[in-house]
Amino acid sequence: MIELKENERIDYMLGDQLKIIQDGQSFAFSLDTLLLAYWAKEAIKNRSKVVELCSGNAAASLYMAAFNKAHYDDVELQEDIVSKARRSVELNDMQDRITVHQGNVKDAGSFLRKDSYDVVVVNPPYFKAPAGHKLNPDRSKAIARHELEINLEEIIAVSAGLLKMKGKMFMVHRPERLGEIINYGFKHDLAVKTVQPFVSRRGQDANLVIVEAVRSGKGDGLVLRDAIEVHEADGSNTPAIKEILEAKLPEEKHYFYVLLCSDGSFYGGYTNDLKKRLGAHNSGKGAKYTKSRGPVEMIYLEEYADKRTAMQREYWFKHHDRAWKEKFLHEQGVKF
Amino acid sequence: MIELKENERIDYMLGDQLKIIQDGQSFAFSLDTLLLAYWAKEAIKNRSKVVELCSGNAAASLYMAAFNKAHYDDVELQEDIVSKARRSVELNDMQDRITVHQGNVKDAGSFLRKDSYDVVVVNPPYFKAPAGHKLNPDRSKAIARHELEINLEEIIAVSAGLLKMKGKMFMVHRPERLGEIINYGFKHDLAVKTVQPFVSRRGQDANLVIVEAVRSGKGDGLVLRDAIEVHEADGSNTPAIKEILEAKLPEEKHYFYVLLCSDGSFYGGYTNDLKKRLGAHNSGKGAKYTKSRGPVEMIYLEEYADKRTAMQREYWFKHHDRAWKEKFLHEQGVKF
Repeated sequence: MIELKENERIDYMLGDQLKIIQDGQSFAFSLDTLLLAYWAKEAIKNRSKVVELCSGNAAASLYMAAFNKAHYDDVELQEDIVSKARRSVELNDMQDRITVHQGNVKDAGSFLRKDSYDVVVVNPPYFKAPAGHKLNPDRSKAIARHELEINLEEIIAVSAGLLKMKGKMFMVHRPERLGEIINYGFKHDLAVKTVQPFVSRRGQDANLVIVEAVRSGKGDGLVLRDAIEVHEADGSNTPAIKEILEAKLPEEKHYFYVLLCSDGSFYGGYTNDLKKRLGAHNSGKGAKYTKSRGPVEMIYLEEYADKRTAMQREYWFKHHDRAWKEKFLHEQGVKF
Repeated sequence: MIELKENERIDYMLGDQLKIIQDGQSFAFSLDTLLLAYWAKEAIKNRSKVVELCSGNAAASLYMAAFNKAHYDDVELQEDIVSKARRSVELNDMQDRITVHQGNVKDAGSFLRKDSYDVVVVNPPYFKAPAGHKLNPDRSKAIARHELEINLEEIIAVSAGLLKMKGKMFMVHRPERLGEIINYGFKHDLAVKTVQPFVSRRGQDANLVIVEAVRSGKGDGLVLRDAIEVHEADGSNTPAIKEILEAKLPEEKHYFYVLLCSDGSFYGGYTNDLKKRLGAHNSGKGAKYTKSRGPVEMIYLEEYADKRTAMQREYWFKHHDRAWKEKFLHEQGVKF
C-alpha cells in the first residue's frame, strides 16, 4: 500500500494507464515534461539505458517507460520530490525499470556509469539564478525554476559525460537559452541536431523548444523543424497537442496460430509478434519441432487482447490428436 | 551610358524603381538576397554606416538603399561581378551612397574601418568546400556557393571586427549551419539575438534562416520567430512573400504649411516631415523668425508628391503682404 502525504494526490497520464503522485502546492508535472517525454521516447529502444536528470516526480520516465522496456536512472536533488517519484514508480509497478537516485545532477558521474547511456532526458531549471530579484519563497519550486543548484553548462557537461558515443540528449527549454545550449554543446562535444519549436499561436515567437543533441556528432547538420502550434484561437489545445496528452499505449495483440509443416504435420503456437515468429520458424530458430520441418506455412490464426487466452488456445490445440485437428481446421474453413 | 556585356540583362526590383544588371549564365540575385535585405533594412537608419559582405551584384544594398539615406560599403571578390555591381549602382544613380570594393572579405579589415559600422549584411556561400565532390565548373558560381575563398567562421570574425559595439549583423543561411553560426558568434563576441526561419510549406523543416546578431550582446536572449511559409499548396508565393517581392518604397510627401505665431503673425514654410518640423519650430530651432515667436500653431497645410511645387508655394506665400495672406487664409476657411 502506497501512502500519500498531506497535500498529495494521485493524477493520471496516458488515459488512466499511469498513476502519478503530485502535490498541487509545490510540484506537478507540466505540458513541457510530457512534450519532452513524447519526443524522447522515439529514440528509446527496449534495450536502451536512459538517464533522466532533474527528473522531479519521474513523470517523464514513467511516460517513456510505458512505451518500451528500457531501464531508467532518474536523478533528482530534492528529498521530498524523490519520495514522490519512488512511490509513483511503485504505484505503477515499475521498480525493476526505473531507479530514482537522490543527489545533485552535478555529481551524477560519481554514482552513474559514464560513457554508457543511450539517451539522456532533461527538463532543467529554465531561469538563471536571479540577482537581486526575489526567489519563489517555496524553496522547492525555486530550485526547479532557477539555476540555484546547477546551471545549464553543468547540465550539458554532465549529460555529455554520461552518454556513450552517438548517444542522444533530449532537453526541453525556452528559446531564449537556445544559443547557450548550442554553444555549451559545442564546448562539451554534444552537437545539437534537431530543434523543435512550439508557438502558443501561429505567428507568435516560439515559447518552448525541444532540442535533440548527439554526443560526438557533427556540428553542421542542424534540422530546424516548423513550429508546432499549441493553442487554438479559443485557447483550447490543438489536435497535435491533444494527440500527445491523450496518447494511448500501442495495443499489444496476442495470437494462437497453426502452421502446416513441409511433412504435412500441424504445429500450434503462441506469439505476440507474428512476423518475427514466422521468420524464426522458417530460419530454423522458432521451435525444435519445426526446425527440420520447414518451410512452414501459417494456415490458421486467432487474435486476442490478452496473453492468457491465446496461450490457453495453444495448449488446448496441442493436446488433441491428428484427426481432431483436421476436423477442427476443416470446420474453420481452412484448406490444407 | 551604362554598357551591358554579353549575356547581361537589366532586371528590376521594387516594382520598376530599381534596375540591376544580371547575368543569366553565372550570377543573379535570389529570393534569399531579397529576404535578407528586407529584414536588414528595418535596422538601418539614415545615418547608418552599412557593410555588405559577399555582396555580389549589390542587389541587397540597392534594395536597402532605396529605403533610407545610409551609406553602404560593399565587398565582393570577383572582378566581373564587381563590374556588374558598380554599373548597377550607376544605373540607379547611387554612386554617392554605395561604394563597391573589390577584394576578399577576409581582408576587409585592411580597407574598411574596424569597430565603426552599424550594420553588416551578408549572404555567404552556403556550402563547405566539398572534399572529393565535383564543384560547379563555372568558377564564379562555385565561389558563390562553396566556402572556397572564405569560410563561415572567417566571415563572422570579420563581421564582428567591423561592427561597433551593439552593431548588428544580418545573415541569411541554411538551418544546417545555424549551430555553427551561433557557436562562432559566441567565439567572436557576436551574440545571435533573433532567428527567423522560413519553410517551403507549413509542417516542413525550415530550409532558410535569417539571423540577427549583436556585437557584444548577451548570449541568453535568443528570440526564435515562428516560421514564415514561402509557398502555397499550388506552388505560388504566399502573401507574406509577395509583400516582400512586390514591396514599394514609402512615398515621400512634401508640404507647404502656414504657422500662426504667438504675436499674431504668419510664417510660411516647407517640410517633408511635419511632426519633426513643428517640433523644431516650438523648440526654437525651426527658424530665426519663429525662435522668439513661439509657441506656434499650424493653421494651414498643402500636400504635394513633389518637392518643387511645395517649395514654389512657400515662396509664393512669403512674397505677399499681411492683407493678402489674411484674405487667402480666409478663402481657404482657416480661422485664426
